[in-house]
Amino acid sequence: MRTLAIDTLQKTGEKVTLMGHVDNVRDHGKITFIDFRDRSGIIQCVGQNLEKVNLQSAVEISGIVNKRPENMVNKNIASGAVEIWIEDLKVLSQADELPFDMGKEVLDLQLPTLLDYRTLTLRHGKVSKIFKVQETLMEGFRRASKSIGCTEIFTPTISASSTEGGTEVFKVKYYDHDAFLVQSPQLYKQMLVPVFERVYLVSRAYRAEPSVTTRHLSESIQMDCELGFVDFEELLDAMEFVGRETVSYAVECNKEILKDYGVEDIKINKEIPRLTLREAQKIIKERTGIDHTNEIDMMPEDEREICKWAHEERNSDFVTITHFPTKKRAFYTMPDPVDPEYSLSFDLLFKGVEILSGSQRINDHNKLVAIIKEKGMDPESFKMYLQAFKYGMPPEGGFSFGLERITMLLLNLANVREASLFPRDMERVDFRLSSKKKETKKKK
Amino acid sequence: MRTLAIDTLQKTGEKVTLMGHVDNVRDHGKITFIDFRDRSGIIQCVGQNLEKVNLQSAVEISGIVNKRPENMVNKNIASGAVEIWIEDLKVLSQADELPFDMGKEVLDLQLPTLLDYRTLTLRHGKVSKIFKVQETLMEGFRRASKSIGCTEIFTPTISASSTEGGTEVFKVKYYDHDAFLVQSPQLYKQMLVPVFERVYLVSRAYRAEPSVTTRHLSESIQMDCELGFVDFEELLDAMEFVGRETVSYAVECNKEILKDYGVEDIKINKEIPRLTLREAQKIIKERTGIDHTNEIDMMPEDEREICKWAHEERNSDFVTITHFPTKKRAFYTMPDPVDPEYSLSFDLLFKGVEILSGSQRINDHNKLVAIIKEKGMDPESFKMYLQAFKYGMPPEGGFSFGLERITMLLLNLANVREASLFPRDMERVDFRLSSKKKETKKKK
Repeated sequence: MRTLAIDTLQKTGEKVTLMGHVDNVRDHGKITFIDFRDRSGIIQCVGQNLEKVNLQSAVEISGIVNKRPENMVNKNIASGAVEIWIEDLKVLSQADELPFDMGKEVLDLQLPTLLDYRTLTLRHGKVSKIFKVQETLMEGFRRASKSIGCTEIFTPTISASSTEGGTEVFKVKYYDHDAFLVQSPQLYKQMLVPVFERVYLVSRAYRAEPSVTTRHLSESIQMDCELGFVDFEELLDAMEFVGRETVSYAVECNKEILKDYGVEDIKINKEIPRLTLREAQKIIKERTGIDHTNEIDMMPEDEREICKWAHEERNSDFVTITHFPTKKRAFYTMPDPVDPEYSLSFDLLFKGVEILSGSQRINDHNKLVAIIKEKGMDPESFKMYLQAFKYGMPPEGGFSFGLERITMLLLNLANVREASLFPRDMERVDFRLSSKKKETKKKK
Repeated sequence: MRTLAIDTLQKTGEKVTLMGHVDNVRDHGKITFIDFRDRSGIIQCVGQNLEKVNLQSAVEISGIVNKRPENMVNKNIASGAVEIWIEDLKVLSQADELPFDMGKEVLDLQLPTLLDYRTLTLRHGKVSKIFKVQETLMEGFRRASKSIGCTEIFTPTISASSTEGGTEVFKVKYYDHDAFLVQSPQLYKQMLVPVFERVYLVSRAYRAEPSVTTRHLSESIQMDCELGFVDFEELLDAMEFVGRETVSYAVECNKEILKDYGVEDIKINKEIPRLTLREAQKIIKERTGIDHTNEIDMMPEDEREICKWAHEERNSDFVTITHFPTKKRAFYTMPDPVDPEYSLSFDLLFKGVEILSGSQRINDHNKLVAIIKEKGMDPESFKMYLQAFKYGMPPEGGFSFGLERITMLLLNLANVREASLFPRDMERVDFRLSSKKKETKKKK
C-alpha cells in the first residue's frame, strides 16, 4: 500500500512505502540524503549504502517515518517535521544524467533551454507551481461565470472562413476544402446567446501574427463570457466581477506560491475604477506631462501609468478603460449612441497590462450586414452568424481573456511562454522550427 | 429592474419586467397568449390588443403576476402556477418568419435542416436541453478527476508531427512550415506525468477520417486522465470511478430532462463487471451462438450483446473489457507481461457502445524507441515525447473519452451530430462544404 509524502506526518514510527521522483541527492560518505517528491510534496529520506540513483529517476522507497529533532524541522516543506529512514530503495525508472543543474531553488536557464528541455524543466518545483496557479485561475473563472448564471458551452476551432476579418489566420487542409483555425470563439458564443442567454466557455485562440513579442502566443487558452439582455453598465459590472473573482480565487488558493514569487501586495478592491480612454489619457498627462490625449489607443506605457494611478489613488490593481474609438475595435462592437466615434467597448487592465477585453455588440441584423460590407468583408462568409441575428438577437455583450497572459502577470513572469506548458510561437512547436527544417533537408 | 421567469412565483400581485424570447403565440381574438422563455424557464403571458410579435423575437414584457386557478396550473413548467397579465410589450429584436414549425414538443426535422438552421434549432427546448446535460457530464468528469488528485492541464492542439502515426490528420500551414492538428492530447499528457503525477484535461481530438458514420466527428471534445505510479488494477479502478461518476453526476442533475428523453432505467452499479476480450466473446457465443472468439476486436453487435448481458446479469449498464490484442492498440500500449500478444488495455462500454478507452503505457525509453521503429515511424518525430522517458518515467496509464458520444448515448440520440453545438464532419463546417464550393465557383 502506497503512502503519499504528506500523509507520513500521521505515521510516525510506522513503515511506509513511497513512490515518486528523486529531486535532489546529497552524499555524506556512507549516509545519503534524498529529497523525494510526489504529487503531495517533498520529503527528506535518509539511507545507508544505497545503490546509485540519478536525479529525477522514478523510485519506490520503503522505510520508517521518524520525527525530526525540533531544530532540524524544515519549515519550507509540508512534511518537514518528519523524515524517512530508508530500508529499501527500488529504482522504477533510472534517469539519464541531467543536462543542467536542477537542484537550485530557481532554475537559472535561458528561455530556449527552458523550452528545449520542457519535459524536464517543468518538473522543477518553481516551474510546476506556475501551472498550479494557472489551474486555480481557470477554476476561479468557472466559479465566477457559473455564479452569474452562465451555461458552459463547447464551440468549434475549425471554421469555414477567417472569423473576424484580417489575414492573420492559420489555414487548414480540411478534406478537399480550405478551412481556418478560429482567432477566437467570438462568433459562436454570440450565436448561442438566444439559446442559453448567458454562456461561458474555455476555448482556443489561434493567431498567425508574424511577430515575436513577450506577450503573444500563436495558440492560447481563451476564457469567454457572453450575456444577453444586458446594457453597458450591467455588462461592465459582470465583467469586473468575473475578472476580479478569477484573480482573487487564485490569490486565495496560492498564498505560499505567490510569496515564493515575490507577489505579496495585490490590491483587489470591490470598487474597480472606471475611466473612458480620454479620461485616462488626461490623468496620464497630468501625472507625467506626456500628452497622448489624441492617441486612438493606450500605449504600453500608458497602461502601466494608469495602473500605477489606480494602485496609488484607488487602492486597486485593476482598472477598467472604456470607450475606445469605434474604428479601432472589431466590427461587431456597438458604437456609443451618444457619440458613435467612440464605442461601448472596454479593457480591464491588471498590474500594468490589458488582461481582458470586450464590448456591447451590435445586435441588429441589418446594421451588422452594413458594417461587414463597409469593412470590405463578404456577408456570405458570416452566413451562420447572421442567421442568429435574423431570428431575434437580444441586446448583448461579452468579454474574453487569455489564461497564459493573466498567469504571467499574476506571477510577474518575464515572458508569456513561461506560462504555457508547451508554448507555440512563430519559431517554435516544441522544438525550434528552424532546426526541424534543417533536419528534413539533411535526410533528403 | 428585470425579473427572471422563475422568480415570478414569489411576486404574485406585483408588477414585473421580464426579458426573453417568444417561444409560442396563441391568438384568441383580442386575447393573446405568449409562451415566454428566458434562461430560467418558460412562463405564460396574456395580453389584449398586443402588437404583432414574431416567434423567437427578443422582447421586454411588463405586467402583473397573477396566480392561475388550481385547475389551470401547468405542471410541465416551473412557473406554471402563475401567469403575467401584460401591460406593456416591447419588441427588442423582431425575428423573421420561421422557416419551420418550432412550436411542437419535438422538433421534427431531418438532420440537414437541423444543422443548416443550427442557430435557430438550438433554441428549441428539447434541443437546448441536450447541452444542459452535456454541461453536467463535463462537470461530473472534472469533479471525479479532481477527487482522485488530478491537476488540470492545458495542452496544445498544434503539433509538429502527426501524433500517433497514421495518415488521418489535418495539416496546418504554420508560418513557413507544415504542422498538424493533434489526434488527441495523448503524448502531451504522458509527458506531464513526471511533473504532476496525476493530470486531467479537456482538449480537442481532430480526426481526418474520410468516412461518415453516426458516431464520429472530425472535431470533438475529449476528456482525459493520466496517472503515474499505478498498476493495471489501480488504473482500472480509477477509470471505472471516473466513467461512472461522470455519468451519475449528469443523471442526478437532469432527472426531468432524462425522463423527457425516455431515459429512465439507467443501471449504475458500483461493481462494474470486468471481462477480458476473450471472456466477453465466450459469453456472447454462449448467449447467441455467434462465434467471434477469434476476432481481434469487438464488433458493434458484440458491444451491444455484452452490454445486454451486463444489464441483465450484473445490474450494470457499464461493462469493462480488457486485454485487446497488442497489435490492435496504439504503439505506447503496454503488452501484458504474462502473454504479450494481448495488452494491458481496456474499453469501457455503456449502453451498447464503447465510450472510454485506455491502457497501461510502456514507460521504458528504449522499448518505446524500438516499438516506434517497428511500426515504421521515425523516433525523431517523437523527440520531445521521448525526452520525458529519458529522465525517469514512472509506471503509468490513462484513458480518454469523447464528450459528444457519451451525451449521445445517455440521451439515446440517433446521431452524434445532435450532441455537438456546431458539428464538423467530412461534409459540413456549419453549412455543407459542397454548397460552399459551388458558390465560390459561381462568383468566379
